[in-house]
Amino acid sequence: MIKESINQSFTVAYRYQVHFTKALFSIANPVLARFFASHATDIMAKALVVVDDGVVEHHVNLLQEIRAYFESLQGIVLADELMVVNGGEQAKNDHTLVDRIIDAVDRHGIDRHSYVIGIGGGAVLDAVGYAAAISHRGIRHIRIPTTVLSQNDSGIGVKNGINYLGKKNFIGTFSPPFAVFNDFSFLQSLSDRAWRSGISEAVKVALIKDAVFFEWIAEHAGALTNRDADAMEYLVYRCAELHLQHIAGADPFEFGSSRPLDFGHWSAHKLEQLSGFEVMHGEAVAIGIALDSSYSYLMGYLTHADAQRIVQLLQALGLPVFHPLLDAEGTDHPLLIGLDEFREHLGGRLTIMLLQGIGKGMEVHTMDASRVLAAASMLQNDFEVQL
Amino acid sequence: MIKESINQSFTVAYRYQVHFTKALFSIANPVLARFFASHATDIMAKALVVVDDGVVEHHVNLLQEIRAYFESLQGIVLADELMVVNGGEQAKNDHTLVDRIIDAVDRHGIDRHSYVIGIGGGAVLDAVGYAAAISHRGIRHIRIPTTVLSQNDSGIGVKNGINYLGKKNFIGTFSPPFAVFNDFSFLQSLSDRAWRSGISEAVKVALIKDAVFFEWIAEHAGALTNRDADAMEYLVYRCAELHLQHIAGADPFEFGSSRPLDFGHWSAHKLEQLSGFEVMHGEAVAIGIALDSSYSYLMGYLTHADAQRIVQLLQALGLPVFHPLLDAEGTDHPLLIGLDEFREHLGGRLTIMLLQGIGKGMEVHTMDASRVLAAASMLQNDFEVQL
Ligand SMILES: NC(=O)c1ccc[n+]([C@@H]2O[C@H](COP(=O)([O-])OP(=O)(O)OC[C@H]3O[C@@H](n4cnc5c(N)ncnc54)[C@H](O)[C@@H]3O)[C@@H](O)[C@H]2O)c1
Ligand SMILES: NC(=O)c1ccc[n+]([C@@H]2O[C@H](COP(=O)([O-])OP(=O)(O)OC[C@H]3O[C@@H](n4cnc5c(N)ncnc54)[C@H](O)[C@@H]3O)[C@@H](O)[C@H]2O)c1
Ligand SMILES: [Zn+2]
Ligand SMILES: [Zn+2]
Repeated sequence: MIKESINQSFTVAYRYQVHFTKALFSIANPVLARFFASHATDIMAKALVVVDDGVVEHHVNLLQEIRAYFESLQGIVLADELMVVNGGEQAKNDHTLVDRIIDAVDRHGIDRHSYVIGIGGGAVLDAVGYAAAISHRGIRHIRIPTTVLSQNDSGIGVKNGINYLGKKNFIGTFSPPFAVFNDFSFLQSLSDRAWRSGISEAVKVALIKDAVFFEWIAEHAGALTNRDADAMEYLVYRCAELHLQHIAGADPFEFGSSRPLDFGHWSAHKLEQLSGFEVMHGEAVAIGIALDSSYSYLMGYLTHADAQRIVQLLQALGLPVFHPLLDAEGTDHPLLIGLDEFREHLGGRLTIMLLQGIGKGMEVHTMDASRVLAAASMLQNDFEVQL
Repeated sequence: MIKESINQSFTVAYRYQVHFTKALFSIANPVLARFFASHATDIMAKALVVVDDGVVEHHVNLLQEIRAYFESLQGIVLADELMVVNGGEQAKNDHTLVDRIIDAVDRHGIDRHSYVIGIGGGAVLDAVGYAAAISHRGIRHIRIPTTVLSQNDSGIGVKNGINYLGKKNFIGTFSPPFAVFNDFSFLQSLSDRAWRSGISEAVKVALIKDAVFFEWIAEHAGALTNRDADAMEYLVYRCAELHLQHIAGADPFEFGSSRPLDFGHWSAHKLEQLSGFEVMHGEAVAIGIALDSSYSYLMGYLTHADAQRIVQLLQALGLPVFHPLLDAEGTDHPLLIGLDEFREHLGGRLTIMLLQGIGKGMEVHTMDASRVLAAASMLQNDFEVQL
């Protein structure tokens, strides 16, 4: 009558749209209005909006525009408080912001059919997304990313998180957004550093998946660094598309160990942390890409010409390929420590994406310590091989 | 070149086994050893074990048995700390236990391929499951439920959570366990109250899904209250099976508003909270079942005979069907307040499961306040209709 065990199995289907637009909160822009109309029921929904102060600073009418836009909508009402929060990594360095949002969810009676809307850079979106994911076991979460990096990578994907004692994304969940609205107009106010920094994720995904896109980036490097809007919009769009395809393709919640989209990231995480997050994520990724490309060359997987092209493209894009914090020697070199930490993070077995060509990744499970250091020293010395 | 939007869609597949056994940590019992062997890799996995102190108190050799059992295994090693934590609702009344677990995950280097194992009642499992779900965006979580309620309901499902400012499960996630081990031997040490209390979830699921199971419970009411182990084991098994089937069948992560398994729960949540969790979950559910069955009768959905049978079965099982905290009058009656809160919780539109027969649920979207109060007063007055 009683079996020894019962096998439980089921699938959960997720679906969301990533919109590309400009001036999202202009009354003339119907994108958001159409979205809410398509989800309207006979019940008034509520929206709690959380905005990155770095955005508000440069878009001084934004809060007013948001209020006016929502007043023009039916079936949805704003919580009578627009939360403006500190942007940048501090948003996710502790529990403070998350707690503030949970508290607001409670005070404003935001339920599972209401919305928590995050507007800002990747850091604010990661914290807001996490708060939305754990409140009532998951409230509808809308992301409005405002940086290059968040529009082409972090804001369109399925992950959120906060740091714990300086450890990146130690706490978080896999929780797809309910919808994403990429508003290109926000990008105009980015600092040159933030503008450039998000480009590395596009180089990254092009390198492992799409040689044609890599060529496109190379051809448009000048336009991109000169802040040409059209070039940046295409870059964001295509990078987002490649990321979305990858996520949908296999293992969206990363149950396995393989994480191709983390190409160049193992050393980037270490460098971000070492620098106390002074080095931006995208800058650290640029260095990480340069490092793993050089290493791929030293291991004989990638030609010298290809490795050099990659490093030169990053430089042409105004991105760093080395950092003084990596100027060290011996077995306590930060890169070797970072590699150990990464191995431990993965549960004892490394899985690292390298390159065997432009547009063609390959996974390895061991890294040769001396060649890792040789790759770093190449980058420090203008790509001269010093074996 | 740039489309207005990209549609993202994918599914995530979940699979886990729920085992039924006795003396799980006896060296002679191969169930757990087989499980770990089947998941072994070339990497040593780690296990962090968190145990409910209410269990340890009655099973004084448990910690020793756990250590000995793990020492007999290959490929998996215990973190050198067995965490014994306060059991009962206090485990989930604030963030303390969750923080302790996250801290231990960090200290012991528990990664996404290691295990967090919770042993205890529903409250401890809810908190441990939540901590595991948010650490590294989800660590493998094994549940070893030790109460009737957690073995037949809370421990085998996909939800976890903690309370926030007294609000039940305000914070949590949907995160299926990696495996569940129901060890019937633990049930022997339960207080009579805890033993009986978990039976209401079986009555609940029988009433909405399985008339044959309801008859079985009715026939075995005497054996169940006399703590007959065989009867209880079958009850737990069949109730678990029905819950698992339901979860796999439709909407496991409750994106919609329909929650049939919450039959009898809307008032139960209110009563638990009103009593400061003095009333156990299962006791509150028994009262909730009695209330919604009586209400179903008063609305003409259910016959008087069936409603009466249900109430009498609950009583025969030693379960309460009324509580003095519900002895009130007028529009500020706790049940009417509870109904309003539940409506708000659902985003403004009620969906409540009622009965149109034994084994046959039906959903409604409105509740008649005066009949809710009349149902309560019937229960207070020995099931005499007082309209
Ligand atoms: N969840 C994921 O999958 C994922 C993926 C990659 C990166 N990330 C995370 O994203 C974060 C980095 O995000 P980021 O690169 O967007 O940087 P950021 O969020 O740290 O923002 C950088 C600065 O730009 C400001 N800012 C934001 N939008 C602006 C605008 N339109 N105009 C002017 N200033 C603006 C912010 O206030 C902040 O000071 C990191 O925490 C990283 O871990 C997450
Ligand atoms: N996650 C879900 O889907 C879900 C579903 C239903 C209920 N729940 C939650 O489950 C909790 C109730 O769980 P519960 O009924 O198991 O009670 P409980 O966890 O509160 O435990 C009751 C008491 O029994 C003790 N205990 C546990 N095992 C014992 C054993 N074998 N012998 C002796 N004492 C033992 C505990 O220490 C505690 O003092 C509530 O918080 C409820 O919200 C969760
Ligand atoms: Zn990145
Ligand atoms: Zn229940």
